[in-house]
Amino acid sequence: MADPWQECMDYAVGLARKAGEIIRGALKEEISIMTKSSPVDLVTETDQKVENFIISLIKEKYPSHSFIGEESVAAGEGSILTDNPTWIIDPIDGTTNFVHRFPFVAVSIGFVVNKKMEFGIVYSCIEDKMYTARKGKGAFCNGQKLQVSGQEDITKSLLVTELGSNRDPETIKIILSNMERLLSIPIHGIRAVGTAAVNMCLVATGGADAYYEMGIHCWDMAGAGIIITEAGGVLLDVTGGPFDLMSRRIIAASSRAIGERIAKALQVIPLRRDDAAN
Amino acid sequence: MADPWQECMDYAVGLARKAGEIIRGALKEEISIMTKSSPVDLVTETDQKVENFIISLIKEKYPSHSFIGEESVAAGEGSILTDNPTWIIDPIDGTTNFVHRFPFVAVSIGFVVNKKMEFGIVYSCIEDKMYTARKGKGAFCNGQKLQVSGQEDITKSLLVTELGSNRDPETIKIILSNMERLLSIPIHGIRAVGTAAVNMCLVATGGADAYYEMGIHCWDMAGAGIIITEAGGVLLDVTGGPFDLMSRRIIAASSRAIGERIAKALQVIPLRRDDAAN
Repeated sequence: MADPWQECMDYAVGLARKAGEIIRGALKEEISIMTKSSPVDLVTETDQKVENFIISLIKEKYPSHSFIGEESVAAGEGSILTDNPTWIIDPIDGTTNFVHRFPFVAVSIGFVVNKKMEFGIVYSCIEDKMYTARKGKGAFCNGQKLQVSGQEDITKSLLVTELGSNRDPETIKIILSNMERLLSIPIHGIRAVGTAAVNMCLVATGGADAYYEMGIHCWDMAGAGIIITEAGGVLLDVTGGPFDLMSRRIIAASSRAIGERIAKALQVIPLRRDDAAN
Repeated sequence: MADPWQECMDYAVGLARKAGEIIRGALKEEISIMTKSSPVDLVTETDQKVENFIISLIKEKYPSHSFIGEESVAAGEGSILTDNPTWIIDPIDGTTNFVHRFPFVAVSIGFVVNKKMEFGIVYSCIEDKMYTARKGKGAFCNGQKLQVSGQEDITKSLLVTELGSNRDPETIKIILSNMERLLSIPIHGIRAVGTAAVNMCLVATGGADAYYEMGIHCWDMAGAGIIITEAGGVLLDVTGGPFDLMSRRIIAASSRAIGERIAKALQVIPLRRDDAAN
């Protein structure tokens, strides 16, 4: 039987590459910045332009499919995940990086059917690294097969996470005290390149042993989530339970042992789900 | 008058490139890890091999010059900075990254005469980015001229720093509370790629607005320090006073205004100077 979604994936890889070209072009121009949920939650015209570009071209080809896009949701569209084939899109993961020209900016496209991830694409467009994964067929970066480190010993681990864009004092305190508990285990270190999608792809390459974060959205995780699992890693909730794409929290680890040890260290931040009723 | 140090610089660029080749080769083999000052302060045979490679070839050509190298100092050699032409070398800046194959690993070579930085080289060898600066002649990455962002408004800034390898609970607390104070100003965000030299070069490119850290060493700063100033940035002590290469602390900023604002936020960590008497 032919793979019903491979054609969608091939089409999306081409779109991600073109979106990356638009982003690289925009980096050469002046960038005008707007804010969303907080003075440091940034958005630009390029985010909106790239999302419209991707969604309009997919809609033309697959008019019956559903869409959840970061900027469409910001503009008031819903983000309820149904069983319908659904494209989950972050046009620029790492908008703050984009604004500063800090060189990690990704186009993220995830494709979910019956609430299960079928394929994912993360194009880190300044580095020109195209990460892809199709369910059951492995994860790749520029054609090279990816494999997580498989590290099980937290004291030998390198983690990636982010400080986020929430500036509520209580939230900042929890984020930093979580880091304090992890560093004190001890672990080798913590890195942060400024995009959830690229952080997760670094775990998929084996360059880091786990990524965790609370407060991100389904569009930050939908592309890279299947890249992690197809590279041999695991996705968990921050409590150590099953991962939930709409929960706004994730542990993406090279092994279940590391993932569960991180979950044990984390204090949970209360969050409104992506699919919460308005 | 001919530039007396340009020949040294040209020679050092070639050595840094060859050292980077050795490091990239070592990444394909198994890496055996030893520890230094703490269970997470890592060193490998490649660090020592690359430092010996660089120093022995420079010594052959410039026998009267002095040397301060990370691994030579770890092996018991002194690190007193005199007026003699002195090469300050970190064979692998980002050893923890190297061990994990996290893709930011740099060869750092600084050259100081009469205690003043004359040129600096940082070769980020996995990215294949060669950063160089000669006093009075500008800073470059792969031949492209670098310019800091010039940002003066801390609330619009992106910072880089590291959590470091010190696992003393009091030190961790100060590092995290410094981050808390900066985030609360608010700033746009904090990134950490895991090497002081590359973090500083990212400020030189304009991709980040400032880097600060306490606990690093002269070999982490000597190569990138002049890359910052030649790109139009400033070096300050973490108190806001004059930068001191042997003090183990630095603010490298795109403007004096941002540097001084960061200094105001930082609680200072007590440290033993690189040139302290034994």
